[in-house]
Amino acid sequence: MTSNQKYGAGIWHFATYVDRYATDGYGEPRSVIDAIDIAGQVRDLSVVDLNYPYFGGEFSNEQVKEALDRNNLGVIGITPEMYTREFAKGAFTNPDPGVRRRANELINEAADVVRFFGADYVKLWPGQDGWDYPFQVDHGALWKNSLDGVGQLASENPDLKFVIEYKPREPRVHMSFDSVSRTLLGIEKIGLPNVGILLDFGHALFGGSRRRIRPSSPSTTGACSAWT
Amino acid sequence: MTSNQKYGAGIWHFATYVDRYATDGYGEPRSVIDAIDIAGQVRDLSVVDLNYPYFGGEFSNEQVKEALDRNNLGVIGITPEMYTREFAKGAFTNPDPGVRRRANELINEAADVVRFFGADYVKLWPGQDGWDYPFQVDHGALWKNSLDGVGQLASENPDLKFVIEYKPREPRVHMSFDSVSRTLLGIEKIGLPNVGILLDFGHALFGGSRRRIRPSSPSTTGACSAWT
Amino acid sequence: MTSNQKYGAGIWHFATYVDRYATDGYGEPRSVIDAIDIAGQVRDLSVVDLNYPYFGGEFSNEQVKEALDRNNLGVIGITPEMYTREFAKGAFTNPDPGVRRRANELINEAADVVRFFGADYVKLWPGQDGWDYPFQVDHGALWKNSLDGVGQLASENPDLKFVIEYKPREPRVHMSFDSVSRTLLGIEKIGLPNVGILLDFGHALFGGSRRRIRPSSPSTTGACSAWT
Amino acid sequence: MTSNQKYGAGIWHFATYVDRYATDGYGEPRSVIDAIDIAGQVRDLSVVDLNYPYFGGEFSNEQVKEALDRNNLGVIGITPEMYTREFAKGAFTNPDPGVRRRANELINEAADVVRFFGADYVKLWPGQDGWDYPFQVDHGALWKNSLDGVGQLASENPDLKFVIEYKPREPRVHMSFDSVSRTLLGIEKIGLPNVGILLDFGHALFGGSRRRIRPSSPSTTGACSAWT
Repeated sequence: MTSNQKYGAGIWHFATYVDRYATDGYGEPRSVIDAIDIAGQVRDLSVVDLNYPYFGGEFSNEQVKEALDRNNLGVIGITPEMYTREFAKGAFTNPDPGVRRRANELINEAADVVRFFGADYVKLWPGQDGWDYPFQVDHGALWKNSLDGVGQLASENPDLKFVIEYKPREPRVHMSFDSVSRTLLGIEKIGLPNVGILLDFGHALFGGSRRRIRPSSPSTTGACSAWT
Repeated sequence: MTSNQKYGAGIWHFATYVDRYATDGYGEPRSVIDAIDIAGQVRDLSVVDLNYPYFGGEFSNEQVKEALDRNNLGVIGITPEMYTREFAKGAFTNPDPGVRRRANELINEAADVVRFFGADYVKLWPGQDGWDYPFQVDHGALWKNSLDGVGQLASENPDLKFVIEYKPREPRVHMSFDSVSRTLLGIEKIGLPNVGILLDFGHALFGGSRRRIRPSSPSTTGACSAWT
Repeated sequence: MTSNQKYGAGIWHFATYVDRYATDGYGEPRSVIDAIDIAGQVRDLSVVDLNYPYFGGEFSNEQVKEALDRNNLGVIGITPEMYTREFAKGAFTNPDPGVRRRANELINEAADVVRFFGADYVKLWPGQDGWDYPFQVDHGALWKNSLDGVGQLASENPDLKFVIEYKPREPRVHMSFDSVSRTLLGIEKIGLPNVGILLDFGHALFGGSRRRIRPSSPSTTGACSAWT
Repeated sequence: MTSNQKYGAGIWHFATYVDRYATDGYGEPRSVIDAIDIAGQVRDLSVVDLNYPYFGGEFSNEQVKEALDRNNLGVIGITPEMYTREFAKGAFTNPDPGVRRRANELINEAADVVRFFGADYVKLWPGQDGWDYPFQVDHGALWKNSLDGVGQLASENPDLKFVIEYKPREPRVHMSFDSVSRTLLGIEKIGLPNVGILLDFGHALFGGSRRRIRPSSPSTTGACSAWT
């Protein structure tokens, strides 16, 4: 008899990190295909979460699928890269409506990749949506844009699930979706059944949560609690 | 023309602290009357928040009122001492139903003191309601008891406001009402119009909130946001 | 064959804590004799560190020894209570020279208790020696008094070891002996062979040390590194 | 009459940052010449600290000097880039002696640039020298290599000053030179008169130092305290 517990990992953990200090990276650059082949060497790994667009070159969904197949890996979710230079001042909350629209387009493309792979969700980590200084932003507008951005996507793609990965801070001093409680408040306000939370255990510890991490967090509706 | 801004302080700031180290206190013990007379020397102080029961002796409401009057001080709220030895394992969430009942009685007595002074609210700081270790408590039961405790009081005293002062931790490693977002989730679940939040600026900073502190925090109902 | 590893505990862990919130304590008060009898029930506990003066009543060294003997416990060190109300503004660094002298007397009495029990050291935790605010203290004078206080004791008692237990903060916002490195700098300046460091693992973690805790920390002389 | 206070800035603050998230940077890439021209627009800025090698292209010392001159800027120090990919496992403490040698060469080249500009110091920020996990490194060897690396440079260049910029962590979980006290212990052990400390105010706050930042930190020799 075998366990039903599946193990997964973000594909970025098999790529090469860059930071403020080692600006040339902590190793040779890798493509998503390289990363999948390395992920395939991890015993018991069943699924990966893929960044979109694919990194390290131009690859079709079919090419990526071929690499996954030869490594016996499935796709649990797609993470659109909504935190790069284009979105440095925010994705859902960018002051420029054109950039907000571009974020919506990018995530809709990621939604199609979810459909292609039959994955479970589009993962939203709006890492540049937040603030750094007191009085820097209009908090009401920021929060409204955060919810509108997620809500519009969930309306446009009722066949898919959208999961928000909260994080207290970094790179912004304060991220808009900063905690499980605040994210649940937002999800209730959005009021759609296909929006949930993805719990990143590291981000939860980062926020001072030395406590339970469990699927059903306190929610007033019950309909919107976390799936993952 | 004068400002409408009023300044207030918790009366405990004018008393003598005890801690784990200076177990004999950081100065001579003081009664609530002593503390009021010292508070009266602070220029521009208009109101105080009083602990109940009164500390440092047996005093009637009338005696306390007399001290307040001679110092030109009003009462903004009453803070029942629901975090002393009797409540070391929790007030609203104590595993012993008898202690939970005793907490309810104590806070109802504090509610009468609010009526006596015509104060604005009963302030709830359930400082021992929380947890210290993983797997120490049943989080569902803890949260339910937290909400039931507040909800029962709000039902029993529809003429009064109850404000919850959240704090991330200390003395418990994690307090049940730990943040503005989580407290708002609870208030929405309670669903009564006379429950709100009291923002302690220090506690907000303690929770990593280097951000706005404003009366209307994100709330799905609008009816339950913070007053103070 | 048995291990040479001995286990010990501060006797205060078997007493009752008081804090700012449960000002009446987290349980019934206990005397040092009660605490020793409870400590005796811990399997594998060989030694205790005793506070001086003895808490919870008037007890002679002989009475305490009798309680220790019937519980098969030895004494590893004595901790003078140099952080109570009398020393609220500092022990070694108190602005009042009379209080500094009183700290010296108290610790010399504790030294005699070390001799009585044949214990290993006098443990110094000058918990109120430090600062809270920028510009509150003359840092040069504070540091000099910290070193003079320890140095005088070590000179007066060349037959005994004095160990400094550093801690980053609490109750002061910043404690004078705040880290292993700073304490070693001080020990080198004192320049006496009977001054060392006692490593409290919790205090080390508190200071952000997720690293080695080992007896020989970086020291330029080698003579003054930690023994415990 | 004018103040003798001079203002300076690291030239990197006028370049474009890259991080783990905006891997394509928070703006268009800039060369050191671009950055100098921007720095020149800051009123009251007199000096800059320059990274070596120069970023954003191949530039001679003369070309850089020309840019500085037209912006009325001097050079206070040179910061060798000893924390890039080549030094990902450490510079002074790299397990590969060839890389340690390469670090020495790079910093000696930086020393020549200090001479070219008549700058005040070579600034050492060995940001990858440290550890991440318990039991990851031999702490004695790490510390010895840290001191040997700095000491060798100071011996080879007795005409120049070398200043160590400590930082508690980031990118490593723990940096070898983590605090002012630990760095002073190292400087005393090195025992050369041309090694000191550069205080980065942000790094000091990062380490929990809400206290004095003053030139003469506690030092047993007096000869090695901080200059800057």
